[in-house]
Amino acid sequence: MFSKEMVRRGSQRSVIRELFEYGNQRAKIVGRENVFDFSLGNPSIPSPDWVGQELQTMLQTQTPIQLHSYTSAPGAEEVRRAVAEDLNRRFGTDYTADNLYLTAGAAAALSACFKALTTAPTDEFVAIAPYFPEYECFVCDGAGAQFRVTPPETETFQIDFDGLEACLNTNTKAVIVNSPNNPSGAVYTPQTAERLAELLRRKSEEYGHPIFLISDEPYRELVYDAPAPFLPNYYKDTLVCYSWSKSLSLPGERIGYVLVPPSLTDSAQAYAAICGAGRCLGYVNAPSLFQKVIAQAGGKPVEIEAYRKNRDLLCEGLKKAGYTFTVPGGAFYLFPAVPGGDGEEFCRRAMKQDLLVVPGEGFGCPGHIRISYCVAEDTIRRALPIFERLMQEYQSQP
Amino acid sequence: MFSKEMVRRGSQRSVIRELFEYGNQRAKIVGRENVFDFSLGNPSIPSPDWVGQELQTMLQTQTPIQLHSYTSAPGAEEVRRAVAEDLNRRFGTDYTADNLYLTAGAAAALSACFKALTTAPTDEFVAIAPYFPEYECFVCDGAGAQFRVTPPETETFQIDFDGLEACLNTNTKAVIVNSPNNPSGAVYTPQTAERLAELLRRKSEEYGHPIFLISDEPYRELVYDAPAPFLPNYYKDTLVCYSWSKSLSLPGERIGYVLVPPSLTDSAQAYAAICGAGRCLGYVNAPSLFQKVIAQAGGKPVEIEAYRKNRDLLCEGLKKAGYTFTVPGGAFYLFPAVPGGDGEEFCRRAMKQDLLVVPGEGFGCPGHIRISYCVAEDTIRRALPIFERLMQEYQSQP
Repeated sequence: MFSKEMVRRGSQRSVIRELFEYGNQRAKIVGRENVFDFSLGNPSIPSPDWVGQELQTMLQTQTPIQLHSYTSAPGAEEVRRAVAEDLNRRFGTDYTADNLYLTAGAAAALSACFKALTTAPTDEFVAIAPYFPEYECFVCDGAGAQFRVTPPETETFQIDFDGLEACLNTNTKAVIVNSPNNPSGAVYTPQTAERLAELLRRKSEEYGHPIFLISDEPYRELVYDAPAPFLPNYYKDTLVCYSWSKSLSLPGERIGYVLVPPSLTDSAQAYAAICGAGRCLGYVNAPSLFQKVIAQAGGKPVEIEAYRKNRDLLCEGLKKAGYTFTVPGGAFYLFPAVPGGDGEEFCRRAMKQDLLVVPGEGFGCPGHIRISYCVAEDTIRRALPIFERLMQEYQSQP
Repeated sequence: MFSKEMVRRGSQRSVIRELFEYGNQRAKIVGRENVFDFSLGNPSIPSPDWVGQELQTMLQTQTPIQLHSYTSAPGAEEVRRAVAEDLNRRFGTDYTADNLYLTAGAAAALSACFKALTTAPTDEFVAIAPYFPEYECFVCDGAGAQFRVTPPETETFQIDFDGLEACLNTNTKAVIVNSPNNPSGAVYTPQTAERLAELLRRKSEEYGHPIFLISDEPYRELVYDAPAPFLPNYYKDTLVCYSWSKSLSLPGERIGYVLVPPSLTDSAQAYAAICGAGRCLGYVNAPSLFQKVIAQAGGKPVEIEAYRKNRDLLCEGLKKAGYTFTVPGGAFYLFPAVPGGDGEEFCRRAMKQDLLVVPGEGFGCPGHIRISYCVAEDTIRRALPIFERLMQEYQSQP
């Protein structure tokens, strides 16, 4: 009577959401402060003050009609223009309002891209492990296409290029990358970006059609050491999916975009397909009040110092406790290997102590766990002894 | 390279959105006040004062983390509870938070329903003309199912039951109704609701599986004469898709819900399927700040007096000018028959005079036009002479 697939997707929610709900339930029992929830990417740095001030000013100076009416489906033109100008300033590009389609967050942006690019059920989208597990859901059940995964390169969490090349074939529609990466925190180096572009150019030529690059970059500004290469400047057939969820700490408000650069093959047609896909998926316009907020974001600094502090504290504590990991250059995730080599087992043991972390299995990278360190510093301090204890447990009863 | 269907959907935007964009372009040339735009359902009554006040209070008294974080995917539990309690008060029902899935507006709610119910590409969804044209897009390209239309009953714009029965077969998954109706403004009578329920019960029994009723009711509170029957109280297998776009004049903010009543066959499974569908379509949670706003809406009056005044003014003027129509009992649309019998031709003639109305053809009801009277009263006063002139033109050059 109902789609079995949708019932499954709705019942076995994403592991991350599941843990989040579990944490909420536990918090009611043992108290919020005694649940060490490192499961969800809910930013702990509050939105910058200017966001709240801007909202208040708008509510005082603009009419409800100006604030809350429908906008054009791709977003208000002046907002798209402001976003284009900010990108141009930062990346030396020449984008206009017509290259931007505002969306209800990055999930909507990605969904629109997959849907727009899918021409046959045999079309393939390739993610690089570790990857955000919802991709699979959007590709297979949203767009009705095939999802493939390139095995992880667990030394540095850059790209296993042999593995990626082996995944490509004439059915490949696009490769999905996510740098800074959720869950590894890795930021691609310029060398990785260059090599990726070179590979995609070579294979596009070989297959006689472009392989698109879908760059999912909600963490673009959350970098601690070096900036993330802006991929459209490396590879012309790049679609960028962005969200202000993390940079402005507005995840609940659902505001982001698809960038369809003019360099893209048949750019205007691609843009039309994105608009059509958004429409068919039930999107009307990105939330209007927050369109106006993000129009003001250009040029303002993104606050990351609290995350940097958390990263350093967590890295130091986990290293001392005997965990091995790559120090993350961006985002707010740490992705250590676990003792025993079974991420799910580790998470189960951790849950018993009200420590919530996400197994790497769901990200296509077994034997690891994702620790979201977008939490209060105190939570890390109080959780470190639990991480230590778990390591000791494994050492005494592997 | 791109989905032809998505390019088409994105290039030939909905006629309504097309007219809206055309109006914006013309406004730049002749001035906003000289474009008589009756094309879009953008409410002209501003959001009630309490909405702006509530937003300001929340911004002053709650932290950004409380306001803008992810909520549970179906919406914050306390918000869903508040909505359930409001429905229970008004309709004598016994809903809980677990019967509600908050969405980014009614379009998202409908899309999730279609996707959740579709088990095979031969599944059929039946709309009753005149109907909101985006249904077809959501059903065919969003959910990959079939879309069928019951011909209109143009005397009273209730239901042609013989026509509806002829549309039903073993593949019918659901019937979509919209009362108060866009574009006719008709509100179903209790008799219509009863007869519809009786027909669906009979056919469900005949086919051995329930035919669901999807009640799209963003205009529920916008009624002038009699209330709209609350359909789950007439037919147990009713899914309600709601939006606060019209009742609180917040169309740009995208906030609504799917109600999955406990009376629905396998209600829990249906709810899971809705959650799964939302997830696969790229929805994460309904916008968080406006979840908190609508939690406060229960029990507050909905302002409709300006629309009633507009309706009466427009009905009187058009009647005098010789147009024929059914007086709308709800929503903010008037749907007259046009001289000449060709709605598209009438709209073209009207556009030349910067009068924007929508042809009935797109709603499955040729020979009519939709006039959205959610505009300033003055716009109606100044547009009436144009309507008169058009009628005279038709009389002199049919």
